[in-house]
Amino acid sequence: MKAQDKIPQIQLEKNEVSTKFIEAKIDSIIAVLTLEEKVAMTHAQSKFSTKGVARLGIPEVWMSDGPHGVREEISWDAWENAGWTNDAITAFPALTCLAATFNPELAENYGFSLGEEAKYREKEVLLGPGVNIYRTPMNGRNFEYLGEDPFLASSMVVPYIKGVQDNGVAACVKHFALNNQEHLRDKINVEVGDRALHEIYLPAFKAAVQKGNVWALMGAYNKFRGQYTTHNKILHKILKTDWNFDGVVISDWSSVHSTEEAALYGVDMEMGTGTDGLGTTTNNHYQHYYLANPFLKAIKNGALSEGLLDDKVRRILRLMYRTNLNPNRTLGKLNTDKHLEVARKVATEGIVLLKNEDNFFPIQDKKGITIAVIGENATRDMTQGGGSSQLKPLFEISPLQGIKDRYKNATIIHTMGYESGASVYDEILPANLNQDSLYVKAIEVAKKADIVLFVGGLNKSHHQDSEGDDREVFDLPYGQEKLINGIQEVNENLGFLLVTGNAVKMPWISKTKGILQTWYLGSMAGHAIADVVSGDVNPSGKLPFSFPKELNDNAAHAFGQISYPGDGVNQNYSEGILVGYRWFDTRKIKPQYAFGFGLSYTDLKISEVKIDQKKYAKNDQIKITFEVANTGDRAGAEVVQVYVGKHKSKVERALKELKGFSKIYLEKGANKTGTITIDASSLAYYNPEISDWTVEEGTYYLYVGNASNNIVKKIKFDLF
Amino acid sequence: MKAQDKIPQIQLEKNEVSTKFIEAKIDSIIAVLTLEEKVAMTHAQSKFSTKGVARLGIPEVWMSDGPHGVREEISWDAWENAGWTNDAITAFPALTCLAATFNPELAENYGFSLGEEAKYREKEVLLGPGVNIYRTPMNGRNFEYLGEDPFLASSMVVPYIKGVQDNGVAACVKHFALNNQEHLRDKINVEVGDRALHEIYLPAFKAAVQKGNVWALMGAYNKFRGQYTTHNKILHKILKTDWNFDGVVISDWSSVHSTEEAALYGVDMEMGTGTDGLGTTTNNHYQHYYLANPFLKAIKNGALSEGLLDDKVRRILRLMYRTNLNPNRTLGKLNTDKHLEVARKVATEGIVLLKNEDNFFPIQDKKGITIAVIGENATRDMTQGGGSSQLKPLFEISPLQGIKDRYKNATIIHTMGYESGASVYDEILPANLNQDSLYVKAIEVAKKADIVLFVGGLNKSHHQDSEGDDREVFDLPYGQEKLINGIQEVNENLGFLLVTGNAVKMPWISKTKGILQTWYLGSMAGHAIADVVSGDVNPSGKLPFSFPKELNDNAAHAFGQISYPGDGVNQNYSEGILVGYRWFDTRKIKPQYAFGFGLSYTDLKISEVKIDQKKYAKNDQIKITFEVANTGDRAGAEVVQVYVGKHKSKVERALKELKGFSKIYLEKGANKTGTITIDASSLAYYNPEISDWTVEEGTYYLYVGNASNNIVKKIKFDLF
Repeated sequence: MKAQDKIPQIQLEKNEVSTKFIEAKIDSIIAVLTLEEKVAMTHAQSKFSTKGVARLGIPEVWMSDGPHGVREEISWDAWENAGWTNDAITAFPALTCLAATFNPELAENYGFSLGEEAKYREKEVLLGPGVNIYRTPMNGRNFEYLGEDPFLASSMVVPYIKGVQDNGVAACVKHFALNNQEHLRDKINVEVGDRALHEIYLPAFKAAVQKGNVWALMGAYNKFRGQYTTHNKILHKILKTDWNFDGVVISDWSSVHSTEEAALYGVDMEMGTGTDGLGTTTNNHYQHYYLANPFLKAIKNGALSEGLLDDKVRRILRLMYRTNLNPNRTLGKLNTDKHLEVARKVATEGIVLLKNEDNFFPIQDKKGITIAVIGENATRDMTQGGGSSQLKPLFEISPLQGIKDRYKNATIIHTMGYESGASVYDEILPANLNQDSLYVKAIEVAKKADIVLFVGGLNKSHHQDSEGDDREVFDLPYGQEKLINGIQEVNENLGFLLVTGNAVKMPWISKTKGILQTWYLGSMAGHAIADVVSGDVNPSGKLPFSFPKELNDNAAHAFGQISYPGDGVNQNYSEGILVGYRWFDTRKIKPQYAFGFGLSYTDLKISEVKIDQKKYAKNDQIKITFEVANTGDRAGAEVVQVYVGKHKSKVERALKELKGFSKIYLEKGANKTGTITIDASSLAYYNPEISDWTVEEGTYYLYVGNASNNIVKKIKFDLF
Repeated sequence: MKAQDKIPQIQLEKNEVSTKFIEAKIDSIIAVLTLEEKVAMTHAQSKFSTKGVARLGIPEVWMSDGPHGVREEISWDAWENAGWTNDAITAFPALTCLAATFNPELAENYGFSLGEEAKYREKEVLLGPGVNIYRTPMNGRNFEYLGEDPFLASSMVVPYIKGVQDNGVAACVKHFALNNQEHLRDKINVEVGDRALHEIYLPAFKAAVQKGNVWALMGAYNKFRGQYTTHNKILHKILKTDWNFDGVVISDWSSVHSTEEAALYGVDMEMGTGTDGLGTTTNNHYQHYYLANPFLKAIKNGALSEGLLDDKVRRILRLMYRTNLNPNRTLGKLNTDKHLEVARKVATEGIVLLKNEDNFFPIQDKKGITIAVIGENATRDMTQGGGSSQLKPLFEISPLQGIKDRYKNATIIHTMGYESGASVYDEILPANLNQDSLYVKAIEVAKKADIVLFVGGLNKSHHQDSEGDDREVFDLPYGQEKLINGIQEVNENLGFLLVTGNAVKMPWISKTKGILQTWYLGSMAGHAIADVVSGDVNPSGKLPFSFPKELNDNAAHAFGQISYPGDGVNQNYSEGILVGYRWFDTRKIKPQYAFGFGLSYTDLKISEVKIDQKKYAKNDQIKITFEVANTGDRAGAEVVQVYVGKHKSKVERALKELKGFSKIYLEKGANKTGTITIDASSLAYYNPEISDWTVEEGTYYLYVGNASNNIVKKIKFDLF
């Protein structure tokens, strides 16, 4: 009897799910697998699946995009949809909105709901969340990520992962690492210092691994220090040695470029590699993947060790025992009322009130008033386009529909105002009649209204908020500025529902009385917008990234082309650790809207901010207490934010960094005390000299406020 | 809180699988389902799946053809294959071969292996086995069924079902009922008496339900007594009231024709209904199914009761708790060595040695001899074509390949001999050059050989052994007779490997020295054939149906067109209970080869046949003992067959009917005693006057032999 014939029992009983038992079982399975079977597990068999071992009953692994909803079924070996009718799902708000809620509990509900949908759709791996740091507003894919701050991203990603994985579905945190722009993503080499790497770009991944216990992680397309990130020696060591990640590294689709590096530097499953010309039409091109026949050959001829393969297979089997071989897996659910409720709740909590002159918002539903809803985004499906995160929702409530459903007394009128065209960016308003006629009609409609709600912003077309390339200009596209100006000339009662996943230039800001940043909100978009516009929900979202006044005010754009978008080959993150508000704060550049900023319809006041000691040891916890009072006329919520900065550091420091936050809900007239606790060790900087974290002794300042630029209390303390 | 919101836990723990618990759970689920959700479960959502209830986590039901292997994946809403590469399977021998093994234990192995494959392919329902009685050799689909005898079919179907269902996959016994020809199957109305219905056509279904506990059953296309069989009042009562079937009735694909009848007469899931022109291109044509919107409407307006729907949903949920909600379900396996072994074993045990003049078979592998393998079927893929049972096997060993692999000393030469063309039947050898040249070449090749193996028969083309219509002639097609005659003129050392799922006319029989009936053998066809041709395996298969000399010798053809194929509207089964060997026996018509017949390479002798009493009460068991001796020079097996006939019955009776069999394996020189036990009650006839079975008192004859026409002992006994 050959070893291969001694077939172990693959299935686990519910009482056998201990790590020790599973690892022993994995040993017993690896012992009976052939080299060919093991290699077959390490690369795709179709666009979104990998082989199991059919003769043993070891299942296949199926994956799906994406971070804010489970993608529709596509064909086995082509990107066309498969024409199924059972794959319409709930679209959740894109992740910038989730980050804007500053509500980790909601992130867990979000993750759990999404995980339930992925499970019902029989997926082992959900290809999200994305935690790449928002470095520049030009990045086409920022809308999929959790903003510019590593602490915020870390705080939100951990409960998201827990929620997804509670269903026996792996989250797959992505894209590891330094994939901070779409332009030239396939080849750009990022050069960045160790401090920015560890302090800015990696913390959310580290939290995902160490606190979130994420089961999968996706490599990125770009290079780092000359080597592709999907099989990068440095990142591999950080992830699998330093952080002890025990899950599966999945390539991005076509991000593997070398058998040897892929084998050595820890990518466990190769997906989507372009092997056109090597037999695509015969459906066997997968055998030409770097981790397919070339890997097998290299092991057989001794160039690579079988141990490298076994480690990958061990991780893949571990993934299975966490997902499709997990006896405690849920059945999953799709399109439940609860999912829609979570989607709507995240959407309403994530909408940010940026401006509210003369209490423009909320708008009451009164008989006799006419509200004009103008702008293409009032009716545009925002779950379409945008790249791999495109969804097929069961339905998507447009802003116009949501407003019409909510406003039963007021008269709602609508016109398109502008037209974006196919997917081409139009900086200048074309002179054609159609476009002009839209403009003319919009002005006419605005004249008839008591209130105008302009619903504009970006969209999911190429060069907008979309994967594959970056935005080309910081301004609003499609002649929206001219249209806003024109409307304002005939109707000053103008509010803006700004639909974007990125900051935009706001030269028209003074023309509006109110601005709501409404993101991409998914299935319940229109209802959530109507909730906030009407005042049914009091906005409590806070910006997860800064809005610069000018593009060059943003750190990534302050150092010329080599910093962004690079010279075509290389790119230097010249701003180092000073990303986002760290740059604005430290360089004293005033942003249009600051990180952490967001207004409310009520008056919320933070007071009585105190810390529990004046001096702390490095292992201590710093306990901050505060009071929040709601002195306004309706319930609301405040996000109390704690930043810390080092006074006279030995190394370059940002003026302050977010280290804690707490969202406090208050009924009208209520008063609450709150607590935020910070580990003193979290004030460390990454010390490249020792390749480790150093907690510097000395004096620090703690800043407490409701925005990075609105600090109500600054407190000095010492670390020793 | 609405009832619909009280959502029960859907998943079961392993200790909760009692019937009582499950039925209570089903109650609690039905209580929260909306009318729309329930209706959605009763009809297809795609070619091979039905909806679950996504909001509750209730899964979908996926089905797959077919009886001898799991069909490849096809597109969501079209018959084209889906282009997947993970769906190549093990093709098992088609069911006539399984029946020919007369080995129920092997049927269970077969079912278990097939069920494992279906489970690995994530199917809830395997659309097989087929148990329609072989009434005429012209039926294009006989190859999928278990022969002409209800006792044999019952004996083989029960363990098959158990094997499949041990994997948590439902078998689906089909086609219920009286679908005994393909010609005009969509509309032909079958008229048959109650006795033939209950004694001949229903017993295998009854055994499947009552002894096999089958979880699903498929309706047929044809009508019975003026009503479509898929929703037939009489059949419905028999199945669900008299037999207490608690599973799901699935329509054949497009066999439903009426909402009211479908609702009332027990079809639970409507599949494949042609609704072309009602919106096929919009993917929502499923809503026009008889059990979709029209059903919903009829319930809403009170024309049909919701209780009818609830019964269907209850059965569907029960199916789920037996399959995809069954916590004890296996993982399944695909293409294991064991599956190939089972496929080969069934194939070798099912091959029937019909003729063996001068010990033509087995053929030794000797240096210096040349074996010519002639005939298109030597290399033709027999898992292709044939209709819905067509398969995509991982591989299929052709007869030629199998012989080449086995014969390492002899010289194997091959030529095609004849060509069948696309799928058109050619009765007369065409005069074209190509065909002539094949003939000429075959004669040349035959001349060079010491031995000729002609590999011919039918194939899976339209009008051969294929779904959708019947054969057009009883003779061998494609000019094979002329070719056999021609070969024999130049080489008398001629054996025939007859590849069919049906009897054929054998005017050429004297021209051959040996004939092996080799069926459609699946993945291991060639190896199994070589096993038997070489003598590595001694043939032990027995014919599961009679081979008539002339077509009109067959009962169905003895009464003119109205009996077969009908007048275009109606058809009378004029032969009544005298189907198959019952006809030949009773009417004293000599068949070419009789039911139960099959030779061996060794000499097997049945003797010492005895029964334990001379008189039996109606509740007694009749115990038959016998001895079998192997006096030949190699191991072999004999199928001891027990038939019983009533002497001077009050009603029409067949001379004898199979009531028991036992396959006895014997080493060279061995001698074994065996026992077969028969319930006296199984000698009953169906009495239409009381609509029940009557055990007639009086004298019976028991016939024991190794073929229906080779009885070694006749014993008289009385029932009182």
